[in-house]
Amino acid sequence: MTDATRFFDLPSPFPMKRGGALTGARLAYETWGTLDAARDNAIFILTGLSPSAHAASSAADPSPGWWEEMIGPGKPIDTNRWYVICANTLGSCKGSTGPASIDPATGKVYKLTFPDLTLEDVANSSHELVRSLGIERLACLIGNSMGGMSALGYLVQHPGSVRAHISISTAPTAQPFAIAIRSLQREAIRLDPNWNAGNYDDEHYPEAGMSIARKLGVITYRSSMEWVGRFARIRLDHEARSDDDPFGVEFAVESYLAGHARRFVRNFDPNCYLYLSRASDWFDVGEYAVRESGDVVGAALRRIHIDRALVIGVSTDILFPLTQQQQIADGLRAGGADVEFVPLDSPQGHDAFLVDIKNFGAAIGGFLGGL
Amino acid sequence: MTDATRFFDLPSPFPMKRGGALTGARLAYETWGTLDAARDNAIFILTGLSPSAHAASSAADPSPGWWEEMIGPGKPIDTNRWYVICANTLGSCKGSTGPASIDPATGKVYKLTFPDLTLEDVANSSHELVRSLGIERLACLIGNSMGGMSALGYLVQHPGSVRAHISISTAPTAQPFAIAIRSLQREAIRLDPNWNAGNYDDEHYPEAGMSIARKLGVITYRSSMEWVGRFARIRLDHEARSDDDPFGVEFAVESYLAGHARRFVRNFDPNCYLYLSRASDWFDVGEYAVRESGDVVGAALRRIHIDRALVIGVSTDILFPLTQQQQIADGLRAGGADVEFVPLDSPQGHDAFLVDIKNFGAAIGGFLGGL
Repeated sequence: MTDATRFFDLPSPFPMKRGGALTGARLAYETWGTLDAARDNAIFILTGLSPSAHAASSAADPSPGWWEEMIGPGKPIDTNRWYVICANTLGSCKGSTGPASIDPATGKVYKLTFPDLTLEDVANSSHELVRSLGIERLACLIGNSMGGMSALGYLVQHPGSVRAHISISTAPTAQPFAIAIRSLQREAIRLDPNWNAGNYDDEHYPEAGMSIARKLGVITYRSSMEWVGRFARIRLDHEARSDDDPFGVEFAVESYLAGHARRFVRNFDPNCYLYLSRASDWFDVGEYAVRESGDVVGAALRRIHIDRALVIGVSTDILFPLTQQQQIADGLRAGGADVEFVPLDSPQGHDAFLVDIKNFGAAIGGFLGGL
Repeated sequence: MTDATRFFDLPSPFPMKRGGALTGARLAYETWGTLDAARDNAIFILTGLSPSAHAASSAADPSPGWWEEMIGPGKPIDTNRWYVICANTLGSCKGSTGPASIDPATGKVYKLTFPDLTLEDVANSSHELVRSLGIERLACLIGNSMGGMSALGYLVQHPGSVRAHISISTAPTAQPFAIAIRSLQREAIRLDPNWNAGNYDDEHYPEAGMSIARKLGVITYRSSMEWVGRFARIRLDHEARSDDDPFGVEFAVESYLAGHARRFVRNFDPNCYLYLSRASDWFDVGEYAVRESGDVVGAALRRIHIDRALVIGVSTDILFPLTQQQQIADGLRAGGADVEFVPLDSPQGHDAFLVDIKNFGAAIGGFLGGL
């Protein structure tokens, strides 16, 4: 949290999809650019599992954001024209209410007493924030990764609230491969004795479990092809190895994963991770189809009516395969949208939207320029 | 071990590539068919990480083997014509000497005092077994997965010992993606407090770590595509779930992984797993190139001179990608072999050679029929 962070108090109680309600919950968010008088130049960004609301730097917080090269004056998401909003996801731990927050009813941290979280709750809380800013209709709703799933939850539940949509490397329904990976990440955390059914503290913290979960994440966020070029079979210097550990880090790729894990484990709350991970498994836009069998995903997507959409995916993404991006593009087109489908060959896999700014920036900037 | 299991005592001491030697070590193996008078109808099979020598049933052991549908009278590897040998890998725990065996020097289980294991040691011990059977030259050497790497180690170290080679879903050098997956599997085992630096027993056994390692294995052995058709978003009945665990098994794919883990964890020794896993990371046929830079893998493969080769890979294999099978085919061809390269579109990923018998059987049976 910095001077750039603002807070929005959700209507209280805020009902949750699978039951229960949150009292006194809030969302942390940041904005860039200026909302015009007609309030029709707003872009909302729904994030992946771990990012904060700090998508880009600003005068109030000059530190680089997680999508720094994408958002700003003259950048693909041009803040000279657009008013850009990004919120920390409901259920996360970067300022918004989640399992690591205090439950006002008890004065204690929620931990596992936090109600079941779904991506529809994420979508609905975001929609409340947008309306609180006096915005009836978003010029564009952008969703990356898990945020792309939340975005479909937003679109299907709030007809007429969005003109254009950018869908990036996401899924209209969680597939078994992604469920399996996330299930294993959760298992690693839960098997760490320090997790202790959610009752850890800073001294007894499930660091080992979080480390395995993060490494598995990084492995599936990148691609085999990129790593061949990047790491090959480079080994660490003997000095950098720990000789007392016969199975310790030896190859550069192992050291790279260890670095990622180190930067993550203490910076993301384990219970929040478990809740958001499970929410991703539960998401299935097919629930919103009128029909109950056959291509329910397509039938649900056809119920979304927007003017235009840009759907981007990456051929090397093993977690959210290109076939799922094609499915979203086809469904939105069947619903009447003018859809641009951009399959990219970026070698960086699922994470390409964070690093292949050249290709993603061109697609996003071009699409927004045409609105 | 059954009546079908035979044992071969390795020359003692048996020197290991990275130093040290084994005293009184042995290999467990099985055979099918009859060695002809000229001793030139022998096929040797090098296995993946976990299989035993029991590749197929026989009169002495009628239980189905791990490649049951592939080996037998009239089957693709036709035991009416071929004398087939399969050994449990050196370093494994299915009858051959490995970290779970007794060290004759101390009378205690080796555990982590077992010397560093490499796939070249696996290859050399197999070569000793073949020669002990009076076979100067194999009609065909077959290697699957890790066994395919061992096979390249065999070919490059023992020129003139093999006429034909079948290489299946393997790697000429361990790539960073595969190293990363294996490193994480080892980390899960080592972080289990019950692993206890290799000093576990049946009462205190690293079951949780082995479970994560196996599940991650199964995830990477199969393919996303297969699971969409097989599991979709099928959920378990409420009765089959454990209600006291908020993040417990809910989807069919999670139950499938749990079943695989249950069948594996107590049936494979954790220390043996660590040794064989690390041996796979270390393998790089490029070490045998005369040149020291550029395409060392290609240069090493060109030094292998055999008559014919069949190289099979699967497009959905994320662990041993098709590009690596192509590399093997190109390298063996450059060495003078008549090479048949068969890229298959089986949806089953890396494990396809175990389950897509229709396509693998046709390729292998056809190749062997032409020898």
